[in-house]
Amino acid sequence: MQMPQPDASVLDRREAIVAALRQAGAGMVIDDAAETRAYECDALSAYRCPPLAVVLPGSTDEVARLMAVCHRLGVPVVPRGAGTSLAGGSMPTADAVVIGLARMNAVLEIAPGDRLIRVQAGRTNLSVSAAVDGQGFFYAPDPSSQLACAIGGNIGMNSGGAHCLKYGVTTNNLLGVTMVLMDGSIVELGGPMGEAPGLDLLGVVCGSEGQLGIVTEATLRILPKPSGARPVLIGFDSSETAGACVAAIIRAGVLPVAIEFMDRPCIRATEAHAHPGYPDCEALLIVEVEGTDPEIDEQLALIREIALSFAPVEFRESRSEDESRRIWLGRKSAFGAMGQMGDYICLDGTIPVSALPAVLRRIGELSREYGLAVANVFHAGDGNMHPLIIYDANAEGDLDRAEALGADILRLCVEVGGCLTGEHGVGIEKRDLMSDQYAPADLEAQMRVKDVFDPRWLLNAAKVFPLSVSASRREARPDPASHAA
Amino acid sequence: MQMPQPDASVLDRREAIVAALRQAGAGMVIDDAAETRAYECDALSAYRCPPLAVVLPGSTDEVARLMAVCHRLGVPVVPRGAGTSLAGGSMPTADAVVIGLARMNAVLEIAPGDRLIRVQAGRTNLSVSAAVDGQGFFYAPDPSSQLACAIGGNIGMNSGGAHCLKYGVTTNNLLGVTMVLMDGSIVELGGPMGEAPGLDLLGVVCGSEGQLGIVTEATLRILPKPSGARPVLIGFDSSETAGACVAAIIRAGVLPVAIEFMDRPCIRATEAHAHPGYPDCEALLIVEVEGTDPEIDEQLALIREIALSFAPVEFRESRSEDESRRIWLGRKSAFGAMGQMGDYICLDGTIPVSALPAVLRRIGELSREYGLAVANVFHAGDGNMHPLIIYDANAEGDLDRAEALGADILRLCVEVGGCLTGEHGVGIEKRDLMSDQYAPADLEAQMRVKDVFDPRWLLNAAKVFPLSVSASRREARPDPASHAA
Repeated sequence: MQMPQPDASVLDRREAIVAALRQAGAGMVIDDAAETRAYECDALSAYRCPPLAVVLPGSTDEVARLMAVCHRLGVPVVPRGAGTSLAGGSMPTADAVVIGLARMNAVLEIAPGDRLIRVQAGRTNLSVSAAVDGQGFFYAPDPSSQLACAIGGNIGMNSGGAHCLKYGVTTNNLLGVTMVLMDGSIVELGGPMGEAPGLDLLGVVCGSEGQLGIVTEATLRILPKPSGARPVLIGFDSSETAGACVAAIIRAGVLPVAIEFMDRPCIRATEAHAHPGYPDCEALLIVEVEGTDPEIDEQLALIREIALSFAPVEFRESRSEDESRRIWLGRKSAFGAMGQMGDYICLDGTIPVSALPAVLRRIGELSREYGLAVANVFHAGDGNMHPLIIYDANAEGDLDRAEALGADILRLCVEVGGCLTGEHGVGIEKRDLMSDQYAPADLEAQMRVKDVFDPRWLLNAAKVFPLSVSASRREARPDPASHAA
Repeated sequence: MQMPQPDASVLDRREAIVAALRQAGAGMVIDDAAETRAYECDALSAYRCPPLAVVLPGSTDEVARLMAVCHRLGVPVVPRGAGTSLAGGSMPTADAVVIGLARMNAVLEIAPGDRLIRVQAGRTNLSVSAAVDGQGFFYAPDPSSQLACAIGGNIGMNSGGAHCLKYGVTTNNLLGVTMVLMDGSIVELGGPMGEAPGLDLLGVVCGSEGQLGIVTEATLRILPKPSGARPVLIGFDSSETAGACVAAIIRAGVLPVAIEFMDRPCIRATEAHAHPGYPDCEALLIVEVEGTDPEIDEQLALIREIALSFAPVEFRESRSEDESRRIWLGRKSAFGAMGQMGDYICLDGTIPVSALPAVLRRIGELSREYGLAVANVFHAGDGNMHPLIIYDANAEGDLDRAEALGADILRLCVEVGGCLTGEHGVGIEKRDLMSDQYAPADLEAQMRVKDVFDPRWLLNAAKVFPLSVSASRREARPDPASHAA
């Protein structure tokens, strides 16, 4: 993948820049080469580059002071939550200061009566739910990385998760943010009501991948915990049949809280790794429904009727807490299991549910054409695919081939009416595919909105937009050498 | 209310403009003064002004041709759905061409398997649900005007409704739009997945009150109809107690599909008008829960327990379809009933639920200070107030006093952490209050986003933003006289 050259005039001023950051007295400054290496990549670990420096502020005001310094000195900034991005969303460049939110993890307010919690943006996803669990509430979006990933990153990527079929993704559960703009000014968007008169800038911030500002605090919708939940596991002798069953369930008007899909490569790897006792079949679905026991029974009866019409090789309804845990165990350990099979790229193209059978068939063909294994494990109910392309990082050219296969799969998603990313973001991984998704005028409109928030393109630049398309904007930066440190 | 002067250089070219519109061959053109009067106002009928002309196109391409003509000639455009805006969102100016979507009401696609319907934007809200009812689905946002209001207007105002406590407002149920920009170009935002990589311009379009473009087609999320629903009516001897009960229900982790509130003036007017058999008390709540019968029973048992701890004067659980219909009858005829009491302004400030008791008390005090009756009927569960200020349009100065009282009530909503409008929009009604909600830098950021979409401020101008704040932008329009007709 092509990487833009760092700004030499910034590199030349490294010492002065670090001194100015320290002088701002706004958080721990890390510039030792051994220590900045801990920040050289995120979960897209095929690409690495240590930043110029890392700063870990402790408050919104400190973030504002740091941003003002970087703005004055013309230094690029890369925001970082927990660094779990799979698309390189928080990968540094050599000329950038990473502003990391790891220390900002406090709960600021819990208001069950207003169905909200307010937290600092460095707080992990799971610990948000944990903070309101005792009061009978939870925070719905649940990415696989929820133990580690930060709410700030969730907002940047508009993260989803297994349970988003019913509850929606981050944008459906976000009420307001405090955000620091590149020039150091602090804005409040949304609020306890989640809506605001005039133009809804909160909506455009959610999913903006750190292009518009750094979110430091977030007000999140919390929901009452359901009385109960129960999964079923359904095995099929073909992926297309499993895909057709998903579409039939949705079409019938049942709304499970999750419909998860795993294909044979994924089932086998998972079975070897975590021994969940899955059947050895071509594809399986985990369908979970929520509610009181009678409601669960009613929904599962309908799902059973639909599933049986597709001649499944297995229909296993959980009869106990322990069985539920085992049904989910394989799904939850799938990514870890795949990691044992080799290196992998995890895509997250999203398609209309009705296109699932055709897309799964075509992915199988592409996998054979490229000679690279592809395992599928994904949120089928909302069409959020997660094809994992297995490759060998030590084999010459394997990564390039895997990336080319990934690009073909994502183009296929766009062709059938879907989009490049359901929740991982564009980052560096998919920036050049944005021209497949959007016409030039559409990209221009998006970039003009970025111009409004970050006119000098200092913030998380060279991401999201195709390098060739955004190049002229980045180059139009006023010469940073003219800024005295 | 202050109104900006129409652009004389546009009025002078009236005939040439109408001729150019006709020549575009893009829909029925109405310029006869008797007929344009039908479009002189929307549901904020205290303010009226016939437009220069009205055009009723039949397709997205026709809208694009009309917009291109107006753009070329420098003529302001006012988009109009069904004209049910309560905030003057589709009120014309004398120099504007109204582009009305009433003829564009087709269903373009129904895809239950993908949980979506695609319609033209002039289709009424209720007829969207009607189109998918037979397949067991519905479209969730249900504004009181749902029989008449158009989906395009719903998107412009981010409309809610009684059932939005559980299902969210328009932005939570909108997947994509086709939109025509002021220069006549056509853009697609979102899509069947409802999300898209890069910046989420769909989010900023929803609720943008026709400031960014004219939405001509929309892809909407449809949901499976619940198995059943049942309301309870709970009467209280004070509004504050009713408000406290709402907060307690939400805090306890119950999520009814609706919690509606009516106070004594509203109960009395409704009883006289529609005879729903309501108790004569200070305030009542209608709480509706959904699900299977056992689930409904469980939720209502908990609601009963909470309600009884507030010593209600009545707790009436519906025991039949007919009783459910009667419980809702009063609420649904409330606005009609209030119309019989006199002229009224209907506000829609939104507040945190926990602030309900204090805000209701303060509204009572303000009502006495101003000597104007205020009736309250609103979506209490999500804090979306609807104070109705009763006045006499024929009494000198009454409208001004009612507006001043309304402004005080809305400032109160902002003070307690709420916002000016939950679903009606800012329009002309609340534009000058936007400075109470936002700091100058916040308004500037919003206006710069408008600049991106409509650099000449021709589209629904002089709305949403305070007149004094947006004046310089509107005046910076290139002289329309320089545009040959």
